[in-house]
Amino acid sequence: MKKSFLSLFALSAALCGLAQNDDSIFIRRMADHILINGKAYDDLRILTKTIGPRLAGSPGMYKSEAWGLKTMQEAGADHAWLQQCMVPHWVRGGKDAATAHYTVSGKVQGKKSTAAKKLDVLALGNSAGSMKPLKGEVIEINNFTELEAKKDQVRGKIVFYNYPFNDAFVNTFNAYRDAGIYRSQGPSRAARYGAVGAIVRSMSNSTDNLPHTGGTAYNDSFARIPAVAVGLRDADWLSKTLKELPVSVTLHTHGKFLPDTIGHNVIGELKGSEFPNEYITVGGHLDSWDPAEGAHDDGAGCVQTIEILRTFKALGYKPKRTIRFVLFANEENGLRGGNKYAEEAKAKGEKHIFALESDAGGFTPRAFGISANDEQFAKALSWRSLLAPYGVCEVNRGGGGADIGPLARTQGTPVAGLVPDSQRYFDIHHARNDVFENVNKRELLLGAVNMAALIYLVDKYGL
Amino acid sequence: MKKSFLSLFALSAALCGLAQNDDSIFIRRMADHILINGKAYDDLRILTKTIGPRLAGSPGMYKSEAWGLKTMQEAGADHAWLQQCMVPHWVRGGKDAATAHYTVSGKVQGKKSTAAKKLDVLALGNSAGSMKPLKGEVIEINNFTELEAKKDQVRGKIVFYNYPFNDAFVNTFNAYRDAGIYRSQGPSRAARYGAVGAIVRSMSNSTDNLPHTGGTAYNDSFARIPAVAVGLRDADWLSKTLKELPVSVTLHTHGKFLPDTIGHNVIGELKGSEFPNEYITVGGHLDSWDPAEGAHDDGAGCVQTIEILRTFKALGYKPKRTIRFVLFANEENGLRGGNKYAEEAKAKGEKHIFALESDAGGFTPRAFGISANDEQFAKALSWRSLLAPYGVCEVNRGGGGADIGPLARTQGTPVAGLVPDSQRYFDIHHARNDVFENVNKRELLLGAVNMAALIYLVDKYGL
Repeated sequence: MKKSFLSLFALSAALCGLAQNDDSIFIRRMADHILINGKAYDDLRILTKTIGPRLAGSPGMYKSEAWGLKTMQEAGADHAWLQQCMVPHWVRGGKDAATAHYTVSGKVQGKKSTAAKKLDVLALGNSAGSMKPLKGEVIEINNFTELEAKKDQVRGKIVFYNYPFNDAFVNTFNAYRDAGIYRSQGPSRAARYGAVGAIVRSMSNSTDNLPHTGGTAYNDSFARIPAVAVGLRDADWLSKTLKELPVSVTLHTHGKFLPDTIGHNVIGELKGSEFPNEYITVGGHLDSWDPAEGAHDDGAGCVQTIEILRTFKALGYKPKRTIRFVLFANEENGLRGGNKYAEEAKAKGEKHIFALESDAGGFTPRAFGISANDEQFAKALSWRSLLAPYGVCEVNRGGGGADIGPLARTQGTPVAGLVPDSQRYFDIHHARNDVFENVNKRELLLGAVNMAALIYLVDKYGL
Repeated sequence: MKKSFLSLFALSAALCGLAQNDDSIFIRRMADHILINGKAYDDLRILTKTIGPRLAGSPGMYKSEAWGLKTMQEAGADHAWLQQCMVPHWVRGGKDAATAHYTVSGKVQGKKSTAAKKLDVLALGNSAGSMKPLKGEVIEINNFTELEAKKDQVRGKIVFYNYPFNDAFVNTFNAYRDAGIYRSQGPSRAARYGAVGAIVRSMSNSTDNLPHTGGTAYNDSFARIPAVAVGLRDADWLSKTLKELPVSVTLHTHGKFLPDTIGHNVIGELKGSEFPNEYITVGGHLDSWDPAEGAHDDGAGCVQTIEILRTFKALGYKPKRTIRFVLFANEENGLRGGNKYAEEAKAKGEKHIFALESDAGGFTPRAFGISANDEQFAKALSWRSLLAPYGVCEVNRGGGGADIGPLARTQGTPVAGLVPDSQRYFDIHHARNDVFENVNKRELLLGAVNMAALIYLVDKYGL
């Protein structure tokens, strides 16, 4: 009995080894195909240089949807379509400006004169413009504890949140989570105490002075005060100057919401041959902030998604399960695309067994983060050695993506996110330099290789 | 007995756990210090922007030696000195030029006229200049097998080696090893069959057209023919045009050797408190090719090395063993610095227990490669979990660095190399764009963190 059990075990291990060997060979084929013939970089050039920024409701959104649909069709989708959803339509409305005014000793002994310095700012996404120039004395607030302590000093002023991005976090997304609340909640929490405007230190550890925008979330109980992000050097200058002198800033921004408009998720599908009613989704988001090309955020995730479809077709891979390749609408300032996708999936009774998103930049891949139950996680972990040759050396608990979160919430779908190296991400995130030139072709393609491998494994073995 | 053995085991495991915990805490302190206060990036700015290229024998070499010595002293070395060695003194001697000439159909029906196209080239390091313009018909050779097959067609011609950099290698250094022989051996192997010049496709998978230089090694049995590297787009153009038309190229290069001159390794030392006669070396090479700033190759390794010294001092770490921080001379075209260092170590009877080099770029760290015996390797491998939080998720067999190779050869010293992500390295390697702007501050500092951790562990526990 023991012997036959052992034999069975040996046989099963051998079969498992054979299967892993087959998988290893097929993944190698996909990698060779993508690294040598991959078109994701060329696609990204078109998406960034021909189409450009793609904020919800903007002309770029419509152009990118048309491009996405055509590209899905050309990549070989069995079926490709646009899934309609209403999206918010925030516009920047004009050029953001900020000038700091302060008093300095004049050339004539004893005389004071005023000096001015232009600050490089970007209005926060979804923020209300000042419309007219808005001048206010600046008060530096380093964190919310300090805000509470100084709440009586805030009225009529412009609050300057100078909470630093913590360089000690090796994973820079942890620094982003740590500092991000000052962008999302800061303006309304300052407005609560009568502030008339907000300036937020950019969530970045770059060495330049570019401001990094991103959505703010007003609390309807308080005034919607104008709010801008300021670059790191200007933030440091402002903080240093405020230690010596009073500083006023004139803000001039023009942001506003137009009525909601029609946007679309772009969906390509390969029908499953064995389990067509089990769905696997892989995607990125098609929208981007307006000051740049959205090359890393999240052009990269979109073109990697299409690359997987193209590779499956090129190698004649016929999935067992139905695979959806999705370019989501409106991740940046509404998440309406992701919500719509999950809502329709639920309404149609679709069983979504797995979803993967790439929305952390087109940098060199390092890991997958997976939110799943123990059994599912253990299964994914067992594939690590198949991924390691292509750069994913860790499979970690926790992860996913904003756009696939609604699937997890509505039907418990296990979700995963590609985790690229994060060191450069907040150099470019939501800033003017998130452009094609800052994406490396091989890093982008290697991300697609690892994503293709994971989708292949989930398709073949389930999760 | 069994019980006491188990207790002993438990105690030892607990102590081991405690030790690992202490180590983990100290490494975290070093990481925080380097990521928040690290000066390596500022040092690199000076080395690249103030000093610039630093080929052996060049004015930049002398400036960088003086800078290195001063910086080692300021970083807190117990003792810092210059170790003299003779270095080769190759000079480019002027601007490299190449023009392709070919015949096209003229505007008047049936008339032929000649067209010319400038190629972007860089003479290979150590190559002999043509001195006068040298014109020759071009023959494309894709590999050495083809060279042997076509050896009778080569006489009087310029051989164009068009061996592609293999994109399928995930580790791009494997592609470099694969293609590098055409740069090192190609010119002499072509000269053997009477070729008058050589053009070598750059060892790169970049998307631009920059030529990548690097040393060639003439075989003294054959003529020292002029040899240049050509960018990838020009190489593709040349190959495509040659399929349709004869092409001649005029090469004009000026390379030559001046007499050997005096160079120096820059050495900083922290004396060991317990085992001062056991030496640990960590370093990079100070020289660089002349067309750029040598920011990644190997300014990065130099400033990371100094960062470790500075960090040990800042945190009051007193090494048990003697640690040498070395900026090696002349790695690129002679290795005289590395050879001199090992030679003097042997002459003085120094026992070198470990050496670590960073010479694969200042990119985000991924692994250490270690050449050591089984026991030593197992010990290093046991430290992996201490390094993983900082990006080194693998400790692999095999590795080291050119400059520390002589230590391994002369006294069997185990050697290791920092393995950064390799995807971007051959975009900039030995090309004009190996400049400060292409180094990311955090990636550079994280490399220093992992190196500091490994040196600390070897110092504390030996290897």
